Amino acid sequence: MDLTPDFLNAAKTLLGDKGWRMDAESLEDVSTPWRGTYQGHTPFLALPASTDEVSALVKLCAKHQVAMTPQGGNTGLVDAGTPHGEITLSLRRMQAVRSADPFNNSLVIEAGAPLVIAQTAADEANRLFPLSLGSEGTATIGGLISTNAGGVAVLRYGMMRDLILGLEVVLPNGEVWDGLSGLRKNNTGYDLKHLFAGAEGTLGIITAATLKLFPKVARTSAWISCKDSQDVVQLLALVRDHAGDTVTSFEIIPANAIEMVRSEMPDIRDPNPSELPWRVLCEISMAKEAHARETMEQALAAAFESGLAEDALIAESLSQSESFWTIRESIPLSKRAYGASINHDVSVPVSQIPDFLKATEAAILNISPSAEIVAFGHVGDGNLHYSACEPKAAASPVLSNSATQITEIVHSQAMAFGGSISAEHGVGRLKRDELEDIRPPAATAAMKAIKKALDPDGIMNPNRVVKQS
Amino acid sequence: MDLTPDFLNAAKTLLGDKGWRMDAESLEDVSTPWRGTYQGHTPFLALPASTDEVSALVKLCAKHQVAMTPQGGNTGLVDAGTPHGEITLSLRRMQAVRSADPFNNSLVIEAGAPLVIAQTAADEANRLFPLSLGSEGTATIGGLISTNAGGVAVLRYGMMRDLILGLEVVLPNGEVWDGLSGLRKNNTGYDLKHLFAGAEGTLGIITAATLKLFPKVARTSAWISCKDSQDVVQLLALVRDHAGDTVTSFEIIPANAIEMVRSEMPDIRDPNPSELPWRVLCEISMAKEAHARETMEQALAAAFESGLAEDALIAESLSQSESFWTIRESIPLSKRAYGASINHDVSVPVSQIPDFLKATEAAILNISPSAEIVAFGHVGDGNLHYSACEPKAAASPVLSNSATQITEIVHSQAMAFGGSISAEHGVGRLKRDELEDIRPPAATAAMKAIKKALDPDGIMNPNRVVKQS
Repeated sequence: MDLTPDFLNAAKTLLGDKGWRMDAESLEDVSTPWRGTYQGHTPFLALPASTDEVSALVKLCAKHQVAMTPQGGNTGLVDAGTPHGEITLSLRRMQAVRSADPFNNSLVIEAGAPLVIAQTAADEANRLFPLSLGSEGTATIGGLISTNAGGVAVLRYGMMRDLILGLEVVLPNGEVWDGLSGLRKNNTGYDLKHLFAGAEGTLGIITAATLKLFPKVARTSAWISCKDSQDVVQLLALVRDHAGDTVTSFEIIPANAIEMVRSEMPDIRDPNPSELPWRVLCEISMAKEAHARETMEQALAAAFESGLAEDALIAESLSQSESFWTIRESIPLSKRAYGASINHDVSVPVSQIPDFLKATEAAILNISPSAEIVAFGHVGDGNLHYSACEPKAAASPVLSNSATQITEIVHSQAMAFGGSISAEHGVGRLKRDELEDIRPPAATAAMKAIKKALDPDGIMNPNRVVKQS
Repeated sequence: MDLTPDFLNAAKTLLGDKGWRMDAESLEDVSTPWRGTYQGHTPFLALPASTDEVSALVKLCAKHQVAMTPQGGNTGLVDAGTPHGEITLSLRRMQAVRSADPFNNSLVIEAGAPLVIAQTAADEANRLFPLSLGSEGTATIGGLISTNAGGVAVLRYGMMRDLILGLEVVLPNGEVWDGLSGLRKNNTGYDLKHLFAGAEGTLGIITAATLKLFPKVARTSAWISCKDSQDVVQLLALVRDHAGDTVTSFEIIPANAIEMVRSEMPDIRDPNPSELPWRVLCEISMAKEAHARETMEQALAAAFESGLAEDALIAESLSQSESFWTIRESIPLSKRAYGASINHDVSVPVSQIPDFLKATEAAILNISPSAEIVAFGHVGDGNLHYSACEPKAAASPVLSNSATQITEIVHSQAMAFGGSISAEHGVGRLKRDELEDIRPPAATAAMKAIKKALDPDGIMNPNRVVKQS
């Protein structure tokens, strides 16, 4: 996009010296996502310091018909926040915690703040902000809301959209919608916050949010060995029979993923070696630690009795619990170090996980017999990170030739089991066209009508989520 | 609205003999809401038996430009589901439980089913569907979703919109959107279900829903006496420090409401008479009853020690717990039997409840010194049902003359404390224009743009939520 001198001068003036960059390094920096799987380009980086500046800039963009891409921590995986010719709008100078209200269990924070700032501010108010994921030091509140992030505590606390009480949004015409309500009940029209959440910046720019806080809780973790995935699904139901919805996390980890972690990161040890093919990392959180521990012990005793679990270790300390999580969180990097992998982020109804795993593995091995399947993730949410892998030192590397076919298999199997090809990562440009083929046409038509209604000029992160006609 | 013979013949044919009514009694029945505070009229009652029939009927309406009002259990309070000239579309023949999946914790049910059918089906699957409110035998799933109903367990489980995983909706053009996903994670575009939830039938007709189920829990209830509303708010925080987010309900009841219940319903007794002005009905739900009871006892001991509670009774049995709830649920009827009352459904941030109560009472007594203020409801959600009352036998009845002024006071005070004038009841026609004055203009403009985009002919429950231009 060629920016006119008129636009550039006006933008620079309203943003001030600290509020823009045009040097090659800064532009390159925001055009390359951290995984580097696609490359964007941008003529201008705006760094507004306030909602008023965002509003003024968007009004200027609307006047000059300049398209913009809002960018959070640049940790997204679906090519939603990488500019492709648009100017880039980063809110990294807007990180303030505007207020905290422990009696209302709410926190108002600006969109450019990394998640860890919200977690810390909640902690200082003696409360919990429960969203937690690998990139929490980098991913920003605005990005997490715009992509409706998931993470490891969705089973109990829901996705990011479930954790917001209100939003402040700069609309495509530059007007500011102050919807920073701290209310839990507010039936006063269509729920706009749920429309902006998950819209990947295509309907407006989120500048601040009111987050929902929770009471602090004590966690008890267990590392459990299981003989098959059907047992894992039944084990979740059994643990919830004992613990109610205080089961915070229920992560499935295949034995071969632990092997990969151990071979690529030799300092990490297996907490409880076993010949069985599956591990579960289960966490129960309750106000009283003794209750959580007693509940976990009773649940596991019942699991042994019914044969759903073969072996289990309850963490005796916070550091032991963290050692369980280290393995879980090291899988993505180990996988990359190990060799090639074709990765997916799918979900199916929890009850369908075992059949999905069996059918998908059989179909992949049928076309690529040497592929190693690594399926791990959030059983409680039906969300699996599903990869076909191959070691760097493979005698005859074949996987990359089958990448398209393997993705087709994983996605079509997910759909066949009533699932989704984008569980928590989103749409962006990466899955936009494929989703248009998969999604009911009535839904796509409704989405396009909404986009057109709220952003008639199509200047707000164009062509992400839905194609503009 | 005059219906053409063409339309009528086609509608009767596609619906079949059991699928329509035009007799005066049937039409009157759906034109009068149960509280009878406003009167509607309708030329035709459609009773489709399937989603296909709803789809065909809506296509016919679109072709003939016939406006329609979908109606659930007709228990709404804001004139959203009462026809005013539109044909009426009742889904009372669509009550099937299509499927239940205990391992996925989900239930697919048709929109015409009363809430109690969903509760029972969940129970039979050894799960809990937690929405609970006074009209649960009558209010339907479709109506509850369309109005985003609240109830007495929102503190823990959220509003109705938080309890749906997917929807099936007939759009204004008659197309069916099958979004009955049972997925907990599904980031594949704008979240349409959250747009239809709370839209009061103005964007489409919900024909079925996938509901979120939960593990069953055991409840412990306490009836607590407090000396002021500040203590009540602090008591909630204290109980949550002990119980985490297992506090399911935290209802505030003023002493004068108990007096009204006792005078109008003499069979009901006060479980623990006290001179103090406030009672709290607090419920903790945990998987293990012993944990819930121990937690409640410890929380109340701490509350006595810190002076936040003066007296308390923990229910020793389910029937004692039910006797607490009977008082709570009898307040609306007792209030009506007692005399005149000007009623409101407002919310404020929980922390603002004490100041809101003080300021609002002072302002009302200033213009209407004999008014009796009854404010009860869901403290944990910041949601108060706020009434100014006067006995039938009042020496000089004055309240009705001040109704408009009193409502202005309650609403302006709610707004001044960062609150909402419609917490859980919705907008309908009743609060539409007032909300248009109060709501940020950018939000109203966005809502109207969405309405226009999805229902360009304005045939879907017109002029509810937002005025059509």
